[in-house]
Amino acid sequence: MDRRSLIKNAGIAGVLAAGVAPAVHAQAAVRWRLVSSFPKSLDTVYGACEVFAKKVSDMSGGKFVISTHAAGELMPAFGVVDGVQNGTVEMAHTAPYYFFGKDETFALACAIPFGLNSRQMTAWMYGGNGLKLMHEFYAKYNIISFPAGNSGCQMGGWYRKEIKSVADIKGLKMRIGGFGGKVLARIGGVPQNIPAGEIYQSLEKGTIDAAEWIGPYDDQKLGLNKVAPFYYYPAWWEGSTQFDNLVNIKAYQALSPENKAIIESASAFAHVEMQAKYDAVNPGALKQLVGSGTKVLPFPKDVMDVAFKEAMALYGELNASNPNWKKVYEDYSAFRREENLWFRFTEARFDNFMQAQKL
Amino acid sequence: MDRRSLIKNAGIAGVLAAGVAPAVHAQAAVRWRLVSSFPKSLDTVYGACEVFAKKVSDMSGGKFVISTHAAGELMPAFGVVDGVQNGTVEMAHTAPYYFFGKDETFALACAIPFGLNSRQMTAWMYGGNGLKLMHEFYAKYNIISFPAGNSGCQMGGWYRKEIKSVADIKGLKMRIGGFGGKVLARIGGVPQNIPAGEIYQSLEKGTIDAAEWIGPYDDQKLGLNKVAPFYYYPAWWEGSTQFDNLVNIKAYQALSPENKAIIESASAFAHVEMQAKYDAVNPGALKQLVGSGTKVLPFPKDVMDVAFKEAMALYGELNASNPNWKKVYEDYSAFRREENLWFRFTEARFDNFMQAQKL
Repeated sequence: MDRRSLIKNAGIAGVLAAGVAPAVHAQAAVRWRLVSSFPKSLDTVYGACEVFAKKVSDMSGGKFVISTHAAGELMPAFGVVDGVQNGTVEMAHTAPYYFFGKDETFALACAIPFGLNSRQMTAWMYGGNGLKLMHEFYAKYNIISFPAGNSGCQMGGWYRKEIKSVADIKGLKMRIGGFGGKVLARIGGVPQNIPAGEIYQSLEKGTIDAAEWIGPYDDQKLGLNKVAPFYYYPAWWEGSTQFDNLVNIKAYQALSPENKAIIESASAFAHVEMQAKYDAVNPGALKQLVGSGTKVLPFPKDVMDVAFKEAMALYGELNASNPNWKKVYEDYSAFRREENLWFRFTEARFDNFMQAQKL
Repeated sequence: MDRRSLIKNAGIAGVLAAGVAPAVHAQAAVRWRLVSSFPKSLDTVYGACEVFAKKVSDMSGGKFVISTHAAGELMPAFGVVDGVQNGTVEMAHTAPYYFFGKDETFALACAIPFGLNSRQMTAWMYGGNGLKLMHEFYAKYNIISFPAGNSGCQMGGWYRKEIKSVADIKGLKMRIGGFGGKVLARIGGVPQNIPAGEIYQSLEKGTIDAAEWIGPYDDQKLGLNKVAPFYYYPAWWEGSTQFDNLVNIKAYQALSPENKAIIESASAFAHVEMQAKYDAVNPGALKQLVGSGTKVLPFPKDVMDVAFKEAMALYGELNASNPNWKKVYEDYSAFRREENLWFRFTEARFDNFMQAQKL
């Protein structure tokens, strides 16, 4: 029996029991598509969009359902901002610094060399002006954003040869993510833009001399330790890397107030969960890497110093050339100054003491 | 016209339009009471329960409403666990270490001397076994818990006289929160349990020699800088302090799956927001304190070393005397060892470099 016949033939009780409820449910259901910039194999960064989507479904009682799509499934990893901007999909989960070619301001919502650490970044977003300023900026792309993950401070990557001073960066062909390449180039390196899946081969063949991805857990998954022995820290270009949920503003505005609030809190849950997962899985992976022969070394001080100087010079140039950048960076850099003033007291003293103990 | 007459006289359309919808709404509404252990004047720690309750209401479209009550309004600050356990209220927002007199294991969900820092604590909760183990423990009190805030590493408090070595702790009468007093007593101090509102007077009158509360922003609100000149760091007894939403398990189990999920994500939102707020407001408060004459000093190394040794001895004794503690602490301490191994590489190197720069 088809639906029309059912309604025609059933009494009012029958309609209420069999007809009305499903109709209301179908009417209330919102179905969205989320595109990730990451492959499913990375349960950390890709996992965050699954955690987020599950919370949205759970909190809405299945009335708001978001399907998640890995990089390349609906659009390429670096096409997701265009996809959200033009409404092809309702939302994306990505590292906004990939889009610094459109406007360098994207990087300020994600990671810039010598930027905020993970806690400071979240503080700027939720306790400072970060979210407000980025919403103003993202509006130019029909986007509203919600922080949805952080990797913490990343590792400085894998090198075929030892880096003894900044002179060893000269001519170094290195896969580096996002905005950091701009500073690497200024200190003599040759940044290469290579997707996750091709890094191993490029390093193995010697097409590149070095490559950074994220940290011990993810890097081990990509097998980078098998093709380069030296593992440096810290990634001065990613003192923390924030991942964002980027939502098409019209799709967002069409949501009920409940669903708007659900998007916000589900993002916050994913934000907490991703950083927690990284912090939980990285220590074990680092131990395994060291156990299998990886040499873990700090960058020489002169590399850090020269890179810092060049980063600050770059930001000065951007302040002069890009008014969008200037508006956000002025607030970001003032916040960074205050945070580092504060963190050097009780946080640093406690952490440094604990790290020096035999626990 | 009363409701009965309305239904009797209206046709089916009238019932659907005027009668059924409100009835369903009234049936669906859940009203809960949350008791906080904090006064309304502290917008940081008390504010978190308001942020949480607003998110619950927003996400449920006003169908799940939680009223928030400051310490003393429905029950005393330290009566909230009893209140939740016996179902007088559905939930509490508190610092669980206040209840270490019932069982020292409560402190492991909050802060112990030389414990996990803020990020590590969240990682243990969400990425490690923390939440699972604490849920097993809390079940003995008819409670299920959700992390809902962290203060970060607290300051070591206000002292009328300078602390030059551990000898100056001998006989020192100090207001200290929670579990830290047990270690303070072992290094010669005399811990005092005094509620927030009475600390200022006690220190002014000289009833106590020293007092710690939280950090620059909250401590300034209590006026502690006006009655003691020396401000020490870090609070080695609170490398981070987690606040929990404690929910009566029967009340929780009676919720719909949607509302259960809403409780979890709204707590996560409050968790993110409280730490962000502390990190955003503490730097400015510290500057004001220094500007008005406060002397900010690190604890002498021997104070830290002796306290660390005594804390570890205490934990050894608790492992022998309290099986609940032993079960959770074994996991907690293994996680702490791994986290500090990892954090001393890329996180510490990046933070220490940034804190040394002129920004």
